[in-house]
Amino acid sequence: MSRVFAGIEAGGTKWVCMIASHPGDIHATTRFATTSPEETIGKAIDFIETHAQQAGELSGLGIGSFGPLDLDRNSSTYGYITSTPKSGWAGTDLLCPFQKAFNLPVGFDTDVNAAALGEHRWGAAQGLTDFIYLTVGTGIGGAAVVNQRLVHGMIHPEMGHMNIPHDWDEDPFPGLCPYHGDCLEGLATGPAIRSRWQQPGEEIPPDHAAWVLEAKYLSLGITNLIVAFSPQSIILGGGVMNQAQLFPLIRTKVQELLGGYISAPLILEDIEQYIIPPGLGAQAGVLGAVALAQQAAEKGTFP
Amino acid sequence: MSRVFAGIEAGGTKWVCMIASHPGDIHATTRFATTSPEETIGKAIDFIETHAQQAGELSGLGIGSFGPLDLDRNSSTYGYITSTPKSGWAGTDLLCPFQKAFNLPVGFDTDVNAAALGEHRWGAAQGLTDFIYLTVGTGIGGAAVVNQRLVHGMIHPEMGHMNIPHDWDEDPFPGLCPYHGDCLEGLATGPAIRSRWQQPGEEIPPDHAAWVLEAKYLSLGITNLIVAFSPQSIILGGGVMNQAQLFPLIRTKVQELLGGYISAPLILEDIEQYIIPPGLGAQAGVLGAVALAQQAAEKGTFP
Repeated sequence: MSRVFAGIEAGGTKWVCMIASHPGDIHATTRFATTSPEETIGKAIDFIETHAQQAGELSGLGIGSFGPLDLDRNSSTYGYITSTPKSGWAGTDLLCPFQKAFNLPVGFDTDVNAAALGEHRWGAAQGLTDFIYLTVGTGIGGAAVVNQRLVHGMIHPEMGHMNIPHDWDEDPFPGLCPYHGDCLEGLATGPAIRSRWQQPGEEIPPDHAAWVLEAKYLSLGITNLIVAFSPQSIILGGGVMNQAQLFPLIRTKVQELLGGYISAPLILEDIEQYIIPPGLGAQAGVLGAVALAQQAAEKGTFP
Repeated sequence: MSRVFAGIEAGGTKWVCMIASHPGDIHATTRFATTSPEETIGKAIDFIETHAQQAGELSGLGIGSFGPLDLDRNSSTYGYITSTPKSGWAGTDLLCPFQKAFNLPVGFDTDVNAAALGEHRWGAAQGLTDFIYLTVGTGIGGAAVVNQRLVHGMIHPEMGHMNIPHDWDEDPFPGLCPYHGDCLEGLATGPAIRSRWQQPGEEIPPDHAAWVLEAKYLSLGITNLIVAFSPQSIILGGGVMNQAQLFPLIRTKVQELLGGYISAPLILEDIEQYIIPPGLGAQAGVLGAVALAQQAAEKGTFP
């Protein structure tokens, strides 16, 4: 019986669960709305219990979660969602219920770190040593792989909260971030687009000025990440990036902002191969959780 | 005879050379102005030839240089200074003359990466896995150590060129960066301070508004690095940081900008242990080059 893994993409709006061994061997998938912790975690456990056995030998679980998270293995609250404003979820132990239910290695990381791991293993970042994965949706999250390893640091990156220039004359919208107002996340998420233009992004035509402004803000953040990490690739995922017209706008703006300073052919000449969508598409998150599970099994990492 | 190493801090204004095995065992040091490549490199080689033999067994060299540099070992111009505006230095092969002269392992990296390595080995970052070293002087350079390794990525970081908010009403100074105008480096280097206030920083009193503005710009850059890397420490070196009044101003401003979002005790409560000067002080650069030499000898890395 072949080994399979359970991946859980634990989002603030919905959870996606999958039993798979890799993107070409997916046995089962489900998605459901995020309700209370007890109910949502219970549904994920039920799904895994129901589907894993017939798929193969369940060998590990992976959880890629919205945050902020406690990822410090020496902490008494390792595996917890910490200070989220999401009602009912602050202080939730995500790890322990899965450990109790399955007694298997569990990989646990942020949703965006999981997605980056999935892209590294099976997607657009295969073979790279250094890249950035940025997701732009209801929030903006970023992950970095440096020297082939995910960056965690003291806690974990929170790239959405970068300070970027905000021209108030051009854009009087004050930003939505409850902590920082007009940080990148405050200015450029899906909800910020909807609030600024009084309509959801999905209803704004592709040639609207909204996308030029959106591309500008994302490009300011992306150039900051380029000068900070010198990555070999920037992968842009998340719901807002389904607006495919953003990619060429961002590529041009990033080149303009860098002004030729970084003399790398990938940036100067081949930027359409540098700033790219996820190779795993909309499944980057949950397949990333499967990759977390596989990594945990390889390391034999119990929580 | 004990092993010693030669460190060369190759700056755009001056070079500092040292024969040492560690900060407690320094045998000789010299500094001289940066003139032509031939003359400057010649002086460094003369110094090492003159002083190494009596100090011990010379076992490696390290060069921490101003840049941009070609650090790609597979490139035909590995070891070169590439596109510097510094007259006569673009396209200079820094590595080959030292290799020819000594036929020993040579470590080669940016000046700021070298300083970070020195701080990691002997200075304020001992025992840390993830930290940032930022130097603020005639330019602004940044190095990151992630998972105990220096970040290089595609080329090397150029953190000084981050985009940060610039309030033109508060500060009409347009910035000095020839590529980006008012990027962090354009607004906050020593030359920017001198140009904005029409006097050198050394002559501006510590309670002058100039330092509040300087602290604000540096804090905007530092908070961007905190959310990008989640570092365990931020080390601030370079000539401008000799203005010791900047440290408390920056610490307070960084806390204000983060707005309590990163719930780390080091930031919320102990920030005077988080944003700190180099443990190796003004010798961080050249001792970092000695550390590069030692690392190259450990690895047996020839250029």
